[in-house]
Amino acid sequence: MTLYVNLAELLGSRIEQGFYRPGDRLPSVRALSAEHGVSLSTVQQAYRLLEDNGLAAPRPKSGYFVPSARQLPALPAVGRPAQRPVEISQWDQVVELVRSSPLKGVVQLGRGMPDVTSPTLKPLLRSLAQLARRQDMPGLYYDTVYGTEALREQIARLLLDSGCRLQASDLVITTGCHEALSASIRAVCEPGDIVAVDSPSFFGAMQTLKGLGMKALEIPTDPITGISLEALELALEQWPIKVIQLTPNCNNPLGYVMPEARKRALLTLAQRYDVAIIEDDVYGDLAFSYPRPRTIKSFDEDGRVLLCSSFSKSLAPGLRIGWVAPGRYLERVLHMKYIGTGCTATQPQLAIADFIKDGHFEPHLRRMRSQYQRSRDLMIDWVSRYFPEGTRASRPQGGFMLWVELPESFDTLRLNRALLEQDVQIAVGSIFSASGKYRNCLRMNFAARASSEIEAAVRKVGETAKRLIAEMDVETV
Amino acid sequence: MTLYVNLAELLGSRIEQGFYRPGDRLPSVRALSAEHGVSLSTVQQAYRLLEDNGLAAPRPKSGYFVPSARQLPALPAVGRPAQRPVEISQWDQVVELVRSSPLKGVVQLGRGMPDVTSPTLKPLLRSLAQLARRQDMPGLYYDTVYGTEALREQIARLLLDSGCRLQASDLVITTGCHEALSASIRAVCEPGDIVAVDSPSFFGAMQTLKGLGMKALEIPTDPITGISLEALELALEQWPIKVIQLTPNCNNPLGYVMPEARKRALLTLAQRYDVAIIEDDVYGDLAFSYPRPRTIKSFDEDGRVLLCSSFSKSLAPGLRIGWVAPGRYLERVLHMKYIGTGCTATQPQLAIADFIKDGHFEPHLRRMRSQYQRSRDLMIDWVSRYFPEGTRASRPQGGFMLWVELPESFDTLRLNRALLEQDVQIAVGSIFSASGKYRNCLRMNFAARASSEIEAAVRKVGETAKRLIAEMDVETV
Ligand SMILES: Cc1ncc(COP(=O)(O)O)c(C=O)c1O
Ligand SMILES: Cc1ncc(COP(=O)(O)O)c(C=O)c1O
Repeated sequence: MTLYVNLAELLGSRIEQGFYRPGDRLPSVRALSAEHGVSLSTVQQAYRLLEDNGLAAPRPKSGYFVPSARQLPALPAVGRPAQRPVEISQWDQVVELVRSSPLKGVVQLGRGMPDVTSPTLKPLLRSLAQLARRQDMPGLYYDTVYGTEALREQIARLLLDSGCRLQASDLVITTGCHEALSASIRAVCEPGDIVAVDSPSFFGAMQTLKGLGMKALEIPTDPITGISLEALELALEQWPIKVIQLTPNCNNPLGYVMPEARKRALLTLAQRYDVAIIEDDVYGDLAFSYPRPRTIKSFDEDGRVLLCSSFSKSLAPGLRIGWVAPGRYLERVLHMKYIGTGCTATQPQLAIADFIKDGHFEPHLRRMRSQYQRSRDLMIDWVSRYFPEGTRASRPQGGFMLWVELPESFDTLRLNRALLEQDVQIAVGSIFSASGKYRNCLRMNFAARASSEIEAAVRKVGETAKRLIAEMDVETV
Repeated sequence: MTLYVNLAELLGSRIEQGFYRPGDRLPSVRALSAEHGVSLSTVQQAYRLLEDNGLAAPRPKSGYFVPSARQLPALPAVGRPAQRPVEISQWDQVVELVRSSPLKGVVQLGRGMPDVTSPTLKPLLRSLAQLARRQDMPGLYYDTVYGTEALREQIARLLLDSGCRLQASDLVITTGCHEALSASIRAVCEPGDIVAVDSPSFFGAMQTLKGLGMKALEIPTDPITGISLEALELALEQWPIKVIQLTPNCNNPLGYVMPEARKRALLTLAQRYDVAIIEDDVYGDLAFSYPRPRTIKSFDEDGRVLLCSSFSKSLAPGLRIGWVAPGRYLERVLHMKYIGTGCTATQPQLAIADFIKDGHFEPHLRRMRSQYQRSRDLMIDWVSRYFPEGTRASRPQGGFMLWVELPESFDTLRLNRALLEQDVQIAVGSIFSASGKYRNCLRMNFAARASSEIEAAVRKVGETAKRLIAEMDVETV
């Protein structure tokens, strides 16, 4: 591990253990540099990481302090998934989540829905309406299997922000990030192959592995720095892993951004063991720090990274427009995309291309990022207020998902059932594991502008959890 | 084979062999009934089949005549595909076709594009525009994995016309018929499995088998009555076939409608050998006869037929809205749909549901069917006029595709290359075979309203073919 991550973790655990209290001044950069024998800039990097994680706050001219806000819940523990490849289960729970329609009345804290009510989306809707009124009706025609060139050009431009130098011809448009992931997996794996994944991991990608007959090897993952490189290396040593699939930026569900040095180290590992990487960057543009974090793809020199993403989180998921930059696997991914859906819908591609070209994307992102950051803080605050004592929660560095860990023996499936009667829906933790781990965890969406309705829903979740715990205690007496 | 099909084939071959000439009166129903010892209604059925195939024309009060129009080209020969399961090739040629964008200037006779310029589509565009202007922006939200209920209800209603009694809950919406086929194949097959297909067969479905590692067993197929049940039964006897996949209505590329009795017989075979049927009905609503032909699914009692379709041919392919009625495989198809694309785009589903509910679908179909039937006749006429002597052509009973067969040693790949310089594109025959058969065949689209531009393009195809044949003759001298 790099020095600064080490140092940040040391300081972080001291803060979390209460060695430094809210409002306390943290040691100066100079003092830490002397104490640990590292450079000033290493200490600064460590502090910046702590700051991103909400554990340190700078005050002009006086150094770093422990944020004096209400104390944050402790971080979730690093998971202990099975140490071998497993067949994936949990489809029943996933379908429970994705069969639900956005019903009036039910507060859906479970699904990965961004806020689409921002006025910064207006030009996109206008463009959709205009396209439907055009004489030449471009939206009615088959597109090419690659996708609309105008959109691929805009995406290539946007990808510069994540450090990628790509051409329109390096990209294939897909029906959402789902299809990007699915085509990528089919392009590099055969049934029976082993895929290493971060854990907890996006359930859609895991169900894809399940449906295609692959096995998942879940790698322990740190809630601040991401997939454990040490555990991954052991796994690569021990198993014939074909591909590593992960979400390093604004991870779903944990919310971390993997530090750059670890991204490079991961790529080096992949090169050493000659495996491909499927990098899911669907939340990457929603990172709270500026400039947005780099992708692993941006360091890739031999085309082994397949970068998958979509506009589902940054604009609107109902449009179903995603893309993949498949590196050396382009021809195979193209074939897999063709057999999956032929080509992608034309009209939304054209509308999004216009939206970006006319300069509407950056202002929209800016607004959503700051809204999500604010509602993250509120959501964490509500969790500390309303949830049972000992509840742990993630510190999302982007996106709009909070991961919450309840006491070990708690069952969020029961919680979800109890909540449905109260018109609230959460995502249960077990779907984020191939083998049904994380039963005591749940994921909540904080995309919507904070409101008393949402606070009331979160409160219901917390109080129902408290009630269930009390019942559990009675049962075990 | 049923009696009336037998009789129709006998009369048909007499007509094609010139035993009856254009303008000749055909034997009366009574005479044929006596001669062949069959009922009057059997003869009437036989004549109706001949009529559908353009070989007999009724004149009020005077019986049936051989149509006196220009003599039709002979029908294509029944193919002789490999008599064993093969790995599928030809992706290079397919990608050549689907990578092309609807460029201005190139007359694309190759792709499966309907005419989308009809004014009867206006309400659909209006609905798309209105949805984009709605305050609650339904098009931006994730749909459920099943698809929008309003649309599934309308499709269930439409399916009554094909004899199917289905509920909205029996249907899953997909991203075009492509995804319906792909999810169906993944739901019932594993890599290595053998799939029996009609031959020639839609290249997209065959590439799907290729991409998923299945083998295709091509069954000889008659250009009037469809897949040979005799050959299919032999194949079922000999090979462990998992599923039969075919397009019985307005077949692509041959254009036939499989007679009802043969559909029933096919289903009986499938039951006897306990295999599933993937029935592609994407052109079914565009049959020229009224009422539209029944689906095999409509006879299915034990849920073994997966009916796949879309609005790509009946409305517009750029919308990418299809569906599948997966029978007993519903849960598995749903999983496969989820892992392929998550859910389907919301806005086009809502727009199509409105279009059907408001009664615009039937008038649109009526108009397109008669336009396509007229341009079919013209296209066949152009082929007899401009193509080399001995050219054979199909008699499409619906849809907008003509299959053309040139002399045995002809190579349509060469023809296509020569045509591209002249801004005309065709679909080469070899992509309709798993193993590159039908090199001397091609498919042309007659969807567009007939125009001198299209006539000129067809003429270029025919004359270029003549030139290449002359060159071949010189080469072989
Ligand atoms: C990490 C991750 N990847 C991919 C997806 C799928 O995105 P899309 O809706 O574009 O298919 C999601 C959405 O839930 C996600 O959270
Ligand atoms: C027989 C057949 N099935 C399926 C398809 C694919 O339809 P869609 O564009 O709805 O995916 C086509 C289109 O070319 C076709 O001809």
